[in-house]
Amino acid sequence: MDLRAHIRDIPDFPKAGIMFRDITPLLLHPQALSYAIDEIAEFAQERQVDVVAAAEARGFILGGAVARAIGAGFIPVRKQGKLPWDTHSAEYVLEYGVDALEIHQDAVADGARVLVHDDLLATGGTAAAVCDLIAKAGGEVVGCSFLAELEFLSGRDKLPGCDVQSLVVYDSE
Amino acid sequence: MDLRAHIRDIPDFPKAGIMFRDITPLLLHPQALSYAIDEIAEFAQERQVDVVAAAEARGFILGGAVARAIGAGFIPVRKQGKLPWDTHSAEYVLEYGVDALEIHQDAVADGARVLVHDDLLATGGTAAAVCDLIAKAGGEVVGCSFLAELEFLSGRDKLPGCDVQSLVVYDSE
Repeated sequence: MDLRAHIRDIPDFPKAGIMFRDITPLLLHPQALSYAIDEIAEFAQERQVDVVAAAEARGFILGGAVARAIGAGFIPVRKQGKLPWDTHSAEYVLEYGVDALEIHQDAVADGARVLVHDDLLATGGTAAAVCDLIAKAGGEVVGCSFLAELEFLSGRDKLPGCDVQSLVVYDSE
Repeated sequence: MDLRAHIRDIPDFPKAGIMFRDITPLLLHPQALSYAIDEIAEFAQERQVDVVAAAEARGFILGGAVARAIGAGFIPVRKQGKLPWDTHSAEYVLEYGVDALEIHQDAVADGARVLVHDDLLATGGTAAAVCDLIAKAGGEVVGCSFLAELEFLSGRDKLPGCDVQSLVVYDSE
């Protein structure tokens, strides 16, 4: 299935010069949504994933579904101050700013095999921060899976040694 | 399954006097997560749901999974300024403040049967705003489904005529 046909290009969002890849048409299309989740689930199953981790907010949409599809648990990685228990924190540089992400310190069993998911791999800052947090909490990242990748931003360089899956790859802005 | 046993009570979060119901242990537990998703999916299937709508961020986790489980599409309802296309907006009063939610104007086909999901039904402000946005966009809300309900906050009063499912009900703080 051509998932890219279900992603809408919106120029100048969130600011001038940025071409935003809008996945909402894909999410609304039952076959496209199922196909995307099943592709990621297959990637996860091949790596014997125990638990899926994703950063808020858009990463949660497919992350929870992939966890259900493979019978795994789900770890929400959240913006600062949102998680109620003791947390580990990681700062990171976004494509459009700076932020911090947190994970519960008891979020993952020691040595559990973790799939990191996000809807978009751009500069790689978010995904690298999530991988960092999984390691701090005692898990092992065995793969990173994205709906779309902006290849020209070289996000994979921030995920050395990581097995990366991207369902749609944009090679230019 | 006793889902409540997988929800952690955290006093004084996000502020003094609030008992926070932390669903992260439930999300991490594969059987509990699957059970919750399947219960909501059954509720949705009985109502011939075409599409699942959920508000960011926690609503996305089970919302996307329920959509996948029933072969439906998914509509993300987001905080102000996050959606890149033309939007409808609805202001609402949160348990801890005031905020606005948005939906894409083309988010739902006219007359589509929509399940509204959120992890928590508290005062009902968020769910009522999502229902309002679905109506503005042309959809028909045929049910509202929550993982947990704080019954003593009377959130159902803000959802008149709506078929409500809650998997865990707290009858006191």
